[in-house]
Amino acid sequence: MSPGSLDFLFHPKSIAVVGASNNIETHGHNHLNFQILGGFKGPLYPIHPKQTEVLGLKAYPSLEAVPGTIDHVLVAVGINNVPDLLTQASKKGVKSMHVYSGRASETGRPEAKELDKEILRRVKEYGIRLVGPNALGLFCPSSGLAMGYDIPTQPGHVGAIMQSGANSTDLCHFALLRGVKFSALASYGNALDINEGDLWQHFIEDEDTRIIVSYIEGLRIDPQKYIELVRKAASKKPVIICKGGRSQAGARFTLGHTASNAEVAREIFGEPLKQAGAILVRNIDELLDMAVAFSFLSPIKGRKIGTGGGGGGNAVLYTDEWEEAGFELTPLPAEIHEEFKRRGSQMWDWIKNPGDFSVVAPGDPFDVPALLAEMAKHPVYDFIVGYVGEDFPFKIESLNNVMLYNAEGYIKVFKESKKPFFAIVRDRPLGIREMEGDRHKVYARIKARFLEEGVPFFSSVGEAATAMKHFIAYHQRKS
Amino acid sequence: MSPGSLDFLFHPKSIAVVGASNNIETHGHNHLNFQILGGFKGPLYPIHPKQTEVLGLKAYPSLEAVPGTIDHVLVAVGINNVPDLLTQASKKGVKSMHVYSGRASETGRPEAKELDKEILRRVKEYGIRLVGPNALGLFCPSSGLAMGYDIPTQPGHVGAIMQSGANSTDLCHFALLRGVKFSALASYGNALDINEGDLWQHFIEDEDTRIIVSYIEGLRIDPQKYIELVRKAASKKPVIICKGGRSQAGARFTLGHTASNAEVAREIFGEPLKQAGAILVRNIDELLDMAVAFSFLSPIKGRKIGTGGGGGGNAVLYTDEWEEAGFELTPLPAEIHEEFKRRGSQMWDWIKNPGDFSVVAPGDPFDVPALLAEMAKHPVYDFIVGYVGEDFPFKIESLNNVMLYNAEGYIKVFKESKKPFFAIVRDRPLGIREMEGDRHKVYARIKARFLEEGVPFFSSVGEAATAMKHFIAYHQRKS
Repeated sequence: MSPGSLDFLFHPKSIAVVGASNNIETHGHNHLNFQILGGFKGPLYPIHPKQTEVLGLKAYPSLEAVPGTIDHVLVAVGINNVPDLLTQASKKGVKSMHVYSGRASETGRPEAKELDKEILRRVKEYGIRLVGPNALGLFCPSSGLAMGYDIPTQPGHVGAIMQSGANSTDLCHFALLRGVKFSALASYGNALDINEGDLWQHFIEDEDTRIIVSYIEGLRIDPQKYIELVRKAASKKPVIICKGGRSQAGARFTLGHTASNAEVAREIFGEPLKQAGAILVRNIDELLDMAVAFSFLSPIKGRKIGTGGGGGGNAVLYTDEWEEAGFELTPLPAEIHEEFKRRGSQMWDWIKNPGDFSVVAPGDPFDVPALLAEMAKHPVYDFIVGYVGEDFPFKIESLNNVMLYNAEGYIKVFKESKKPFFAIVRDRPLGIREMEGDRHKVYARIKARFLEEGVPFFSSVGEAATAMKHFIAYHQRKS
Repeated sequence: MSPGSLDFLFHPKSIAVVGASNNIETHGHNHLNFQILGGFKGPLYPIHPKQTEVLGLKAYPSLEAVPGTIDHVLVAVGINNVPDLLTQASKKGVKSMHVYSGRASETGRPEAKELDKEILRRVKEYGIRLVGPNALGLFCPSSGLAMGYDIPTQPGHVGAIMQSGANSTDLCHFALLRGVKFSALASYGNALDINEGDLWQHFIEDEDTRIIVSYIEGLRIDPQKYIELVRKAASKKPVIICKGGRSQAGARFTLGHTASNAEVAREIFGEPLKQAGAILVRNIDELLDMAVAFSFLSPIKGRKIGTGGGGGGNAVLYTDEWEEAGFELTPLPAEIHEEFKRRGSQMWDWIKNPGDFSVVAPGDPFDVPALLAEMAKHPVYDFIVGYVGEDFPFKIESLNNVMLYNAEGYIKVFKESKKPFFAIVRDRPLGIREMEGDRHKVYARIKARFLEEGVPFFSSVGEAATAMKHFIAYHQRKS
């Protein structure tokens, strides 16, 4: 595996956290805590003017007081301290610094511009690479570097170039619920030194990164250079970009957020990027759906779906939604009817695409997984979708059995077939009372099984259809 | 309160369940269990050929063996028994029967048509009104009649006319998570006797029903008569309709589902219904979103939004999504800037619409609820939206405090302002591991508080925007 040019940034051997503290309300406390939770393998040095121990680790009054070498410095104190910290860091041979602190040029205030200049001057002089300011920072499961909690700490293959901390957090939190894993993520904020150009270059080179996702508000580099980087990336791996500040009010807002002039860059974020091979999405949910598709699915080249599951009324509506989104639920081929006749199913002439869960009769060889298995073997279908939803008047004990039986059947189809397969799991966010509910736990258990086996899933046909349109267009373009 | 013409159907004084059994795998067991869970107030009579006690209740071998009167009979045995059961029921003075059993005319088999005829002949002869066959049945919180579990058993004002059991179940399950409550629901299936016409007439008359929602596949009554009923209903209350079988494959499927020829009725389910005043939606999620809007929100007549919450990157994207959906995030009026200046906020010139949660500084009088409260007072905004999402590097203890503080602030704005207010709660469905997670419990607790106080909420701007378009158009049409 050939690593990318910023590999040193994602794999420091030691970290000092300036502003680390035992006060849980401080950012320094939390940033240090994230490295501990993330399982950072090297030494962690809390820097605090007075305390001698922070979060159970020996603390030091300054960078210079640290006995060992420091590769990376995380700054969670006021931005005015950064120039001095850079000078101190240079004496310790520090390679990189992440400045979490904001209230910088995004405020639009003149003194901030002066400070930016001074920081940049010292960064160049000392040869320290800087992430931020106003940046949530770095996440790398293989080194244990982390920028939050409830994040997927197992290494994976999605590289994320994110200009916003909020959207980085959302992406990581929701990725954990969907089985998406990262090679690395950089939430790079104001991009005073390390900018989108450096990060794209890194993730293009990094062979561990097989999918690139990005949230961007404004460009620091030349638009043509940016498009060329995206084109180069897209020629090697799937590239998904979400542009923030597409609307007038959104663009107004980005100025005060990451000091990005989103208006100026708006024109390149449509056709030119699509031409360069990027998939453009509207929000972090769509971005994550694409990461799910590219992480788990083999290529899909057509729009003919074989599907089943859920009761009749569910099946009617999901059929409508698929077809209205431009997909086709191709009628069941005669060979499949014949196969179920041969097996002695009383339902052989009645079953359809989609397969209706509510007509399953005890003892009859027709059930939804059996139908999907036949569809998965038949050349007419491009991909198979198993729907997980319940509508029957069940008692919870039998619901458990029936739902899990079907889910295990789907897993079998997924594993035994070469045809792309995913599930629609029709659960919805819970209230506090429902957390204890057995019915909701059945859905959650099914998803846990899907995650274990690598079965991708979506919450609705609408979401899946949007993702599949992009996914299929990508593979059609490639071939 | 004047009740509707089918009030006797939703408020029986006693129920016999034919097919009730202690075997939890049987539908009879579950249907009886639902009445017990639903809190049905009158006597329940399990009917079983051999057992003398079912689910703790004294059982009888036949309808005739029941000592008291029976108002309503629920049939969960094979459909071939229905003609005889009707004759037995007539001798007991039964007023209504619900036939859960399917495998009727939806199979397209000739013997089913004969059976239909015989059932209908006896229904007419005995004057018993029949729901079904192939119908999940009736739900009425004020009588305790129920057709499932995990359903909202508190009485409310949504009347639901549903041709599908699966979609009835989804609607009730998800309604519970969103605070929507029902006056009554009928899942009427094949509509051999009681059809959509009877049910619309009932819910038009029923003064307890203030909102009518409906899922329909095919018409049993004359299309013109149907449109007239919808027009009459829409002149009195909001009417939301989801048509199943809009697509070719969907229409094919409805034939085998509720024996509905959806093709024939397709043309009336567009413009003619809209002209009649109905709001047309594409699925049960959208239908429920409209029920949330009409249950909780005062009228909204324009598209100017004041909003805030979430970190900067969240705010950029939700701003884009609102504006792309045709709404306006009107810039913050000078008076509101001045008000925060007067209060001594350091942020007074920096704050915007949307209000960015991540620039809130300790001790500063600016915070998101304070901003929304000012927006709620200002005539420029048509409605106010509070976003619930977290992105800051928190420790869970402080996350709890900050999130709940903001949520309580939103509740205060909602209660103290006359301006319509709702929340976007950015949670997503959980896996089994996350059920124990504190972060997810914070969201779930916030929703519990919103439900207690009657604050409506949606999971995404996309969902809320679709609902608000319909909602605003409705109120513009009315005025």
